[in-house]
Amino acid sequence: MKLIDLTHTFDKTMPVFPGDPDSKLEHTALLEKDGYNDSLLTTLMHVGTHMDAPLHMIKDGKTMDQMPVESFFGKGVLIDARGQSKIEATLLKDVQISEGSIVLLYTGYGEKYRTKDYFENNPQVTEEFAQEMVKRKVKIVGMDILGPDEPPFPTHKILLGKEILIIENLVNLNKLLHIPSFEIIVLPMNLQADAAPVRVVARIV
Amino acid sequence: MKLIDLTHTFDKTMPVFPGDPDSKLEHTALLEKDGYNDSLLTTLMHVGTHMDAPLHMIKDGKTMDQMPVESFFGKGVLIDARGQSKIEATLLKDVQISEGSIVLLYTGYGEKYRTKDYFENNPQVTEEFAQEMVKRKVKIVGMDILGPDEPPFPTHKILLGKEILIIENLVNLNKLLHIPSFEIIVLPMNLQADAAPVRVVARIV
Repeated sequence: MKLIDLTHTFDKTMPVFPGDPDSKLEHTALLEKDGYNDSLLTTLMHVGTHMDAPLHMIKDGKTMDQMPVESFFGKGVLIDARGQSKIEATLLKDVQISEGSIVLLYTGYGEKYRTKDYFENNPQVTEEFAQEMVKRKVKIVGMDILGPDEPPFPTHKILLGKEILIIENLVNLNKLLHIPSFEIIVLPMNLQADAAPVRVVARIV
Repeated sequence: MKLIDLTHTFDKTMPVFPGDPDSKLEHTALLEKDGYNDSLLTTLMHVGTHMDAPLHMIKDGKTMDQMPVESFFGKGVLIDARGQSKIEATLLKDVQISEGSIVLLYTGYGEKYRTKDYFENNPQVTEEFAQEMVKRKVKIVGMDILGPDEPPFPTHKILLGKEILIIENLVNLNKLLHIPSFEIIVLPMNLQADAAPVRVVARIV
């Protein structure tokens, strides 16, 4: 078994959407003084490697804790979308995607994470691509960008409207490029919220 | 494949150690007004189902993000410790535990979660039990109680001193009672801190 971690480290200096408050990670107890270390985390949900639940964009949609745990395990499919400013359904033409798969979009744009550029001119995932994901009944679509689209978020809404979850800000997708078969395991914090921090691991089988 | 979720839901009403500030989960953006939902989470690390990293009790110990992802997958071993106020090494006498296992202590005390009793008179895991875990080279020890011991935390220190991680506040361990073979997958938030919220799943193989 070989494992590849596809998750950014969450530290004190996480990039957040321009205008949003910074996340905080502060020491609240210290070993020398209190006999143990403890920390206080304060963060919005859409920071770091995280997963959107239907409620993020869908009225009365499910929160993350309402998604069954079976949603989080699936056959991985990597789509090489490097150099594309629009991620079109045509990229899927010759790709085998079985029902229940977890599809990962490797744009290469993730290399800009922790730079200002990351929040500008990022690739957009088209509505047609999202509709194809619905048609092929995938469980999750993940990507190495901050999100699939801009307001009014049509791609988000197509996916989340069908309870296809969305992982944003993935890393290390390049390490999957030449691996023929892998499973993706995506375990989110069991949070009663519109999204949650998530740990994403590829398991080479 | 059958999956069993061993993780408490994290909501607005999480029990915290007496004296600690409550966790908060607040809406910060609303679909009707802002075009999407977002939430702000504020929480100490040792709330809900979470995992302690070495730094929790060990000077210069590793933070959660420094633990290799291989630490989080292992053969599961359930120890039935119901009715025991002290969890002794003698419980392990006839138990097969291979190197790299993830050991789960089912005390039954987890039924008191979200009651005041949960923080009082909870079972204690002895130092001898912890030393046996070290000897058998397990990866993780998990339990359905708030923690293995009280100040000055000798059991915590034996385990974390050997980089054996500790999961606290597990749920649903009763569902594993008659299952002969299962894998445990424990994916924590990739946090640069002394502990992290975690999702714990048993996979029946």
